[in-house]
Amino acid sequence: MRGFVAGVDLGGTKIYTALADQNGRLLAEVKVPTRAREGLQSVIGRIVETVHHVKKQAGVEGPLLALGIGAPGPLNAATGVVYQAPNLGWDNVPLKQKLEELLGVPVAVDNDANLAALGEHVYGAGRGESEMVYVTVSTGIGGGLILHGRIYHGTGYGAGEIGHMTIDPAGPRCNCGNYGCLEAMASGTAMARAARRLVESGGGRAILEAAGGDADGITALAVARAAAAGDGEARQIIINAGRALGIGVANIINLLNPALVVLGGGAMQVGPLLWEAMEGEVARRALAASRKQVRLVPAELGGQSGLLGAVALALQGVEAGVPPATMV
Amino acid sequence: MRGFVAGVDLGGTKIYTALADQNGRLLAEVKVPTRAREGLQSVIGRIVETVHHVKKQAGVEGPLLALGIGAPGPLNAATGVVYQAPNLGWDNVPLKQKLEELLGVPVAVDNDANLAALGEHVYGAGRGESEMVYVTVSTGIGGGLILHGRIYHGTGYGAGEIGHMTIDPAGPRCNCGNYGCLEAMASGTAMARAARRLVESGGGRAILEAAGGDADGITALAVARAAAAGDGEARQIIINAGRALGIGVANIINLLNPALVVLGGGAMQVGPLLWEAMEGEVARRALAASRKQVRLVPAELGGQSGLLGAVALALQGVEAGVPPATMV
Repeated sequence: MRGFVAGVDLGGTKIYTALADQNGRLLAEVKVPTRAREGLQSVIGRIVETVHHVKKQAGVEGPLLALGIGAPGPLNAATGVVYQAPNLGWDNVPLKQKLEELLGVPVAVDNDANLAALGEHVYGAGRGESEMVYVTVSTGIGGGLILHGRIYHGTGYGAGEIGHMTIDPAGPRCNCGNYGCLEAMASGTAMARAARRLVESGGGRAILEAAGGDADGITALAVARAAAAGDGEARQIIINAGRALGIGVANIINLLNPALVVLGGGAMQVGPLLWEAMEGEVARRALAASRKQVRLVPAELGGQSGLLGAVALALQGVEAGVPPATMV
Repeated sequence: MRGFVAGVDLGGTKIYTALADQNGRLLAEVKVPTRAREGLQSVIGRIVETVHHVKKQAGVEGPLLALGIGAPGPLNAATGVVYQAPNLGWDNVPLKQKLEELLGVPVAVDNDANLAALGEHVYGAGRGESEMVYVTVSTGIGGGLILHGRIYHGTGYGAGEIGHMTIDPAGPRCNCGNYGCLEAMASGTAMARAARRLVESGGGRAILEAAGGDADGITALAVARAAAAGDGEARQIIINAGRALGIGVANIINLLNPALVVLGGGAMQVGPLLWEAMEGEVARRALAASRKQVRLVPAELGGQSGLLGAVALALQGVEAGVPPATMV
């Protein structure tokens, strides 16, 4: 292969684009606001601009061979149609087709969690492991599965909804309408909500203080700060979230017997308490044989896991000789 | 291919063996007691005898090309070593090697639940579906995963332990030592235990009657009989089990987005109440997109799913041209 690929991590707030060589080495990168409100054509145009920008910025000779892009929301990775992306205001957008028309190279699309999993699999914590589960804990909880050495999509590209496993039938209501989902019990949003309820019921002083006295402004970060300062209530909120996370991870281990569970996402930063509580629950609930075979590790690529996954996806297409669908 | 394959479903109580042609059509079958107490060599000898028996019984010309065998307990499907099979009294038994030495043909080993899944995938309810989950509800709850069109083993052949997903952290204790496992809440054993507790606390008259007045002899079948006769307590036990099963199945659907969940095993026969309660919970807890894409269906092959899976495994080896490991 002579030439380069681009990877794009498309989010509700930013477009993160990089140019890479055939080894996945990033040669240039750029981050611009998505400005989803300006409409679909504008967002597509901005994606294309960032690609031209990184190509120019890298100052390399040779053609752009392919583009990989991770998008939020349910989508069809074969057709490259994004079914729904509420934070982009998208509804059945033929992302692959539009970008191929404008760029003239094959474009491969997958969802952001799957590409974060692929990024960690190819370049990060999951190198060399063919059975790997990626879990991202942030405002929500998502995931991507690498099974038999490649992304597992399920029958309709819906696999990996780790956040919507029921962890406790008597648990709190989730955004999905169900009760006791992992996401409703262990996400950053869930920790913040638990803290706000505590404050509403007259407790949580240290947390409120860490949030600058604004109860509505309580975030997982405020809980983390109060816990770091030794506050017992904040610590308990994090421990509860960690235990729920541990039940979810143990369920995954018992069902999938992975070699690796990689945990990423902003809410994993609330401190070691979360990790310890998770590990304790996994030790309790995962079957002995599978528990001995699995490593629980933090994501290595930080904010670049999705971007590098997009690069890996583009490179896989180049290696397989995939032509642009619009040119077939 | 000219010749035949044999499939063996090896259980704690019986050895079930069949001869099949290249289309998986069974030409002869035999079932003999395992007699595990007579020792390993005796069991191996009896397996070999059944293979010779069905070959003779079928009265066909042409060589035996391969054998597939499903064994209970954790094992290594690559080496064919059964790590542990408590109901056979086995500990690190090189089943593949022993049978290859005695039969002189390639032997492929996998665990019984995986082969039941494969049987349903190739010959039963799962024909044509590349993403399929098989769940067996009997004295325990087990399962096998067909992902990307083939058996998914996990990193150490431990995948598919559906029965040990935590369904309710506050649930009853499981044989594995954990609390609230699916198996502890929805297996035949769990239903019988719930009924015995009811009787111990002074209730469950109709169930006790269905069990012939012997509280210790209460089984899921007695619960099923009482429920069929309209007993409210028995019905509730089955509904509770069905709901737990539904949570487990919904978790699988959200995680794996399968096209099909196939449910088999003796305890699925307790009546339509179990199925209805399961479906209700799945409707509540599975994400809309994945729920629309999945079919929940009963196993089609009944007591032959494992046997036919063993036949399918043998045929896969023949098609792939796998030589016996001991001859390599």
